[in-house]
Amino acid sequence: MDLTLLGTKGKKASYELAKAAGQDKNDALAKIAEGLIKDIPRILEANQKDVEKAKANNISSALLDRLILNENRIHQISDSLVALIALPDPVGEVLEMKERPNGLRIGKQRVPIGVIGMIYESRPNVTADAAGLCIKSGNAVILRGGSDAIHSNIAIVRSIRNSLKQSKLPEDCVQIIEDTSREIVREFMKLNRYVDILIPRGGAGLIKSVIENATIPVIETGTGNCHVYVDSSANLEMALNIIVNAKTQRPGVCNAAETLLVSEDRAEDFLPMAKKALIAKKVQLRCCEKSYEMLKGDPLVVQATEEDWETEFLDYILAVKIVKDVDEAIEHINRYGTMHSEAIVTESYTNANKFLKEVDAAAVYVNASTRFTDGGEFGFGAEIGISTQKLHARGPMGLAELTTIKYIIYGNGQVR
Amino acid sequence: MDLTLLGTKGKKASYELAKAAGQDKNDALAKIAEGLIKDIPRILEANQKDVEKAKANNISSALLDRLILNENRIHQISDSLVALIALPDPVGEVLEMKERPNGLRIGKQRVPIGVIGMIYESRPNVTADAAGLCIKSGNAVILRGGSDAIHSNIAIVRSIRNSLKQSKLPEDCVQIIEDTSREIVREFMKLNRYVDILIPRGGAGLIKSVIENATIPVIETGTGNCHVYVDSSANLEMALNIIVNAKTQRPGVCNAAETLLVSEDRAEDFLPMAKKALIAKKVQLRCCEKSYEMLKGDPLVVQATEEDWETEFLDYILAVKIVKDVDEAIEHINRYGTMHSEAIVTESYTNANKFLKEVDAAAVYVNASTRFTDGGEFGFGAEIGISTQKLHARGPMGLAELTTIKYIIYGNGQVR
Repeated sequence: MDLTLLGTKGKKASYELAKAAGQDKNDALAKIAEGLIKDIPRILEANQKDVEKAKANNISSALLDRLILNENRIHQISDSLVALIALPDPVGEVLEMKERPNGLRIGKQRVPIGVIGMIYESRPNVTADAAGLCIKSGNAVILRGGSDAIHSNIAIVRSIRNSLKQSKLPEDCVQIIEDTSREIVREFMKLNRYVDILIPRGGAGLIKSVIENATIPVIETGTGNCHVYVDSSANLEMALNIIVNAKTQRPGVCNAAETLLVSEDRAEDFLPMAKKALIAKKVQLRCCEKSYEMLKGDPLVVQATEEDWETEFLDYILAVKIVKDVDEAIEHINRYGTMHSEAIVTESYTNANKFLKEVDAAAVYVNASTRFTDGGEFGFGAEIGISTQKLHARGPMGLAELTTIKYIIYGNGQVR
Repeated sequence: MDLTLLGTKGKKASYELAKAAGQDKNDALAKIAEGLIKDIPRILEANQKDVEKAKANNISSALLDRLILNENRIHQISDSLVALIALPDPVGEVLEMKERPNGLRIGKQRVPIGVIGMIYESRPNVTADAAGLCIKSGNAVILRGGSDAIHSNIAIVRSIRNSLKQSKLPEDCVQIIEDTSREIVREFMKLNRYVDILIPRGGAGLIKSVIENATIPVIETGTGNCHVYVDSSANLEMALNIIVNAKTQRPGVCNAAETLLVSEDRAEDFLPMAKKALIAKKVQLRCCEKSYEMLKGDPLVVQATEEDWETEFLDYILAVKIVKDVDEAIEHINRYGTMHSEAIVTESYTNANKFLKEVDAAAVYVNASTRFTDGGEFGFGAEIGISTQKLHARGPMGLAELTTIKYIIYGNGQVR
């Protein structure tokens, strides 16, 4: 596996792609979407190999479910590529342009980033999603999926490249690293000359490893230890709706709530209501001392440990803590949170504004569920991940976040 | 030296600073500017120690010049802090706000990044500059300057912290790592829990080391292997002005030109003119085969090696190459350039647009000198560095580039 060759081809393709007209990119996306449908038998055959190996390795049913493709799922993958066609092309927009006193006109133009490296785990749908988002935003992509899904990923990329051959775009817009060894991924993370950014998608372990080993700039995505804080003045019915939704509507995702914080003057009113509704949904409550005293007596009510405050459970488990006031809530969140999504339920103008201003997170909510942090819900039409760092992009990343800027300067002979 | 303690203090100060009103930040800047003037004797005394050590170590006169402070230079440092006061506060601006179909109002608000780590070399003025820019943009800063300037840096930071004590901002907004060992800087680069971004400023070696060792996100600044391309239709008088300015007005800076590319059909007209003007300024010309044949005969005209195309000379040296046309010029630039500043001199509408579109650099010029890539020249009022990477910021970085965004979401009970 010659990564330098892959990198050179990717860079070359990225320059072609940066020049491509929007309609040529859309035409390629349509061809890829069609091609995937035509290739369903081949893709399912490859996927079968991965699934058999996974079963032989006794992987968990959750992981197996992420890995399995079927006709319906491939249609969904194809449909989401078609959906990209209708979105506006982010490339070329001039965000601002001004004339300086010396007559230079300086514009700030949105341009593709170049070559994007994606490192991900066992979901083969990421392969096509990432390829589509990168093409639409004018970027070449080099994919490195998990070994669990390698046959599926290779089959999907083969299909995409065949479709690209029939389009006006170079097929090297989309490349895959077929070698699944650890050495190759470490080498890939240091390919600064050819790869402009790395986006890891997967569990905390994968993301940590990329951050620690990459020399290419990384966009950190993912981990969400999200809180809902029920303030002194909260409408308790609203608070109940929000915490039940944020915890149970889909517990395995990053914008689900993991900790409930309650103002001490409302704890006696609110916590019994919350306990009833959450236990009905089979949620285990891991309670601070005070709230444990208030709620104990049910096997689903247990005592929290220090570790629980910093854990992303991704499961039917909720940490519960009584706090003095909004200030202690903010302090707790800034200490234990992962800067993803945080919500306050309040009727207080002052506390709402305080929470919005002082909580350090990508998305801060007043009187709404944390579950809305999502490219679709934010109106971006598509999403490549949710950034929990502060550089370049924060929160849901759509097409615009897959671009950078370039200053274009029009002169008539100016010198300094 | 307990970096964790430094980090904890910095994080805490950053939350205070993020809440601070613009006028409190401006008031602190005014106090710091005043304080530096009052502390001139103490700062010069400390600087004297650094200078003596440097002389004993026989450092180059260029480095010594960067290190030396005097009354006038401290007044300049103080003035540039005062200049920050007049600039608009970037924090708090809501860049966009929309209402979603479900009634959620989603706004994108500019907020400080948090804690910024600066790693730099021997210029003590960076200490005060960085502190001022970080305070104005609402960020706490942890400074790690070179050991050459350690006494000067400590004296400047002491003065700044004394002034902060008399302001409404916490003094831990500005901290310095006094330990100059290599181990401590390596540890600092991995302080992800407390430091949000690292900005290295200095030579290529320093920047490379930070990129290779940091796990904190890094903004790469600096290296500029910039080109001026004289196109087939260029106005040759204009081209001459531009290349002489771009090469000789200040050869030691990153936006100075390092290579001259000339369209083959204008080489015989242009190169002799250029040779005459550049040799008069004592510029050595390192020529490709064809241009060497055309220009040889002067001791300042020599043959180029492959290495010259990728070298940032930062000196009175210019690589010279004849290319076939604008396409070959773009190819050369994208292959050897450092994505800093690139210029075409042309009267052709088509080639101007082609160059602007296809050259992969932070700033692309038509008919102007590359020397304009600078926060002041771009109208930013201040600059913390010039980014040559594509994440977060590209080109001159002003106050806005020291901020990130946060989504603020106003609901009335929405759940999914």
